[in-house]
Amino acid sequence: MVEKRMLQVLVLDEARQLLLNMAGKRAVSTERAAIDNLCGRVLAKDMRSTEDLPQFDRSAVDGFAVVSRDTFGASAAQPTLLCLSGEVKMGERAQFSINTGVCALVWTGGELPQGADAMTMLEETQPLAGNLIAVESAAAPGRHIVFRGDDVRAGDLILPAGTRLCARDIGLLAALGIPETEVAARPQIGILSTGDELIPPGQTPTGGQIRDANGPMLLAACAEAGADVVHLGIVPDDEEKLLTAMKEACTNCGLLLLSGSSSAGAKDAAARCLTKLGEVAFHGLALKPGKPAFAGQIGGTLVVGLPGHPAAAYLVFHALVRPLIAAMSGERFVQHTVTATLAQAAPSNHGREELLPVRLDGGFAEPVALKSGLISPLTRADGYIRIHRDTEGLAKGTLQEVILF
Amino acid sequence: MVEKRMLQVLVLDEARQLLLNMAGKRAVSTERAAIDNLCGRVLAKDMRSTEDLPQFDRSAVDGFAVVSRDTFGASAAQPTLLCLSGEVKMGERAQFSINTGVCALVWTGGELPQGADAMTMLEETQPLAGNLIAVESAAAPGRHIVFRGDDVRAGDLILPAGTRLCARDIGLLAALGIPETEVAARPQIGILSTGDELIPPGQTPTGGQIRDANGPMLLAACAEAGADVVHLGIVPDDEEKLLTAMKEACTNCGLLLLSGSSSAGAKDAAARCLTKLGEVAFHGLALKPGKPAFAGQIGGTLVVGLPGHPAAAYLVFHALVRPLIAAMSGERFVQHTVTATLAQAAPSNHGREELLPVRLDGGFAEPVALKSGLISPLTRADGYIRIHRDTEGLAKGTLQEVILF
Repeated sequence: MVEKRMLQVLVLDEARQLLLNMAGKRAVSTERAAIDNLCGRVLAKDMRSTEDLPQFDRSAVDGFAVVSRDTFGASAAQPTLLCLSGEVKMGERAQFSINTGVCALVWTGGELPQGADAMTMLEETQPLAGNLIAVESAAAPGRHIVFRGDDVRAGDLILPAGTRLCARDIGLLAALGIPETEVAARPQIGILSTGDELIPPGQTPTGGQIRDANGPMLLAACAEAGADVVHLGIVPDDEEKLLTAMKEACTNCGLLLLSGSSSAGAKDAAARCLTKLGEVAFHGLALKPGKPAFAGQIGGTLVVGLPGHPAAAYLVFHALVRPLIAAMSGERFVQHTVTATLAQAAPSNHGREELLPVRLDGGFAEPVALKSGLISPLTRADGYIRIHRDTEGLAKGTLQEVILF
Repeated sequence: MVEKRMLQVLVLDEARQLLLNMAGKRAVSTERAAIDNLCGRVLAKDMRSTEDLPQFDRSAVDGFAVVSRDTFGASAAQPTLLCLSGEVKMGERAQFSINTGVCALVWTGGELPQGADAMTMLEETQPLAGNLIAVESAAAPGRHIVFRGDDVRAGDLILPAGTRLCARDIGLLAALGIPETEVAARPQIGILSTGDELIPPGQTPTGGQIRDANGPMLLAACAEAGADVVHLGIVPDDEEKLLTAMKEACTNCGLLLLSGSSSAGAKDAAARCLTKLGEVAFHGLALKPGKPAFAGQIGGTLVVGLPGHPAAAYLVFHALVRPLIAAMSGERFVQHTVTATLAQAAPSNHGREELLPVRLDGGFAEPVALKSGLISPLTRADGYIRIHRDTEGLAKGTLQEVILF
């Protein structure tokens, strides 16, 4: 009853690589999505343009298309007089060409008529009687013109596979006439909270019970990562019930997250169930917090067991599971970091890598104390510093890389 | 036909403050949302805890609850022998108390029995025959205990009004038994793309036409900002049609975004319509890009006109409209910034503030050339630098604040 099983722990980077390799062996399923539904989706294939953008030489200003050499030497004192031959209406072809001595009115974005090689802005001209325009400044060839293909050329790689599409990307796809495209299907994730002591957040605990914080928290964290995620409820520390719940969960998801019940000792029921139903990839991390984490697979479903303490669960989720979710949809994933000055010393002398939550304030990183099992401090943190397992800690005033939440 | 109306332009900070003041006069409507739907929503009220967290003194380790003074001086060579009196089961009250000479098995997160004042970890003990436990290390009072209220005390402000809820916040709400809460209603936004030259992204342009990039891009940008947003389509530069479309749009949204048709000249139909239907707050920004932007209100609807060029529209959206959307739901909004070294000089000598898009690479900010009207460069940028209107530019190698997209 009171024996302690000793874990063979893995370091964080190895554990992550192991999971990424497991995910990499699975095919990413894809689906087509219309442009109004592309925000946050991951491109399934390299996206190349099939056409030039812009598709015609166009004006970058409101003004007159001119033959540039007509304007050389022009000034307010000695303007060049040009005959206005017509107007290029927005959205229409330039139906005429111009030649020396002649100009044409073109609005911003309008097509340059044949023969013109520069634009003179409206405010550099004066209209005179008899359809004459006085041009008061010289225009070098090419001035205020966006040439066909200046933005994108046919064949250009515009967005590589794995791009998580944001508003700016979507603008470019629209401009290039790509009204729908192939994206990775959203990863399907199931969450099981385990523990005899857990009750749903809406219930009032009686002695010894605590509310399930990890279920709603991980649900939100997976949704933030772009996954389709379901909270499958709370399962007690009962091996039979856990086996049933895990088997059922695996029929419907590509990733199963378990939280709680993973500390070595009497309660590592979830890890034992994983051994019975599939294969364990690792059990235990050389990480603080996060030692009781484990992972493996059951058939086609990846399984990750997170610590029961919410702060530990969230940190391990961020460091280990977030990159895994990205890999499940082929996302080119980068953890965002900033460099900040450590505001106070952070001793860390326990032979395990430590994830130290910090609050950023004006270029300083202030460690946030994470006494075992507390959850409120994490809401005040902006990210965390990785402290190497072989250091005795970090000195106050040193520059540190902070991984942002 | 070719006269140019001269704008009275406003600087960016004044324009933003003007819009925030207009939004501030409107009540933020609220609604209740369940905990599984809170991700990304904005808290409508200060959230205070009604209870202590944890609700009981609990163990932070798997081990034995002890009377600490029993263990003083204990070591592997000279262990203290204690009589095991029972086990506190997870999720249950500690039904008994302990006294000197006695210990109780308690798992991580379990309640400490009355009389105990410290925990000894399993791995510091040896089980002996006859229910005796050999404790091989001394435990100071309070060791490995999380006391009632250590995390949160009843009455504590846990999350202030205006917090945009993330996964960690949601974990805390769950732990405190807040299964639903009051959040700001999502801002309702309508988008109208204007211009004779525009066609939807799915159509093939004939001469002079271009596809509407701004509609899908702004739709995604508003969704990223947490709004409920509808693209109301493309309206030609026809004042009657624009009046009708704008009037209809205003019946259904708190913010109407127009893009295109806002440059001074023959085409500022949208700004003229705003004058007829409501009030203009400003027309023209002392900003590059972004000069043709305008704003005002029609009844209870705020109206912002963005430039037609997608890159300019996006930058003005980010600098002006994103904070406005936050204000519409009472969000405490901070633009995220990093400091980076400018990789090349950025001349900027035109009397207007400039928003210079940059790409971040290893601590350096590389300016991204935004030749008028191009859209692809913006997909390669990570943020932008604000260059003050009274500077001649920024020198290579200087540290600059980059506002992240």
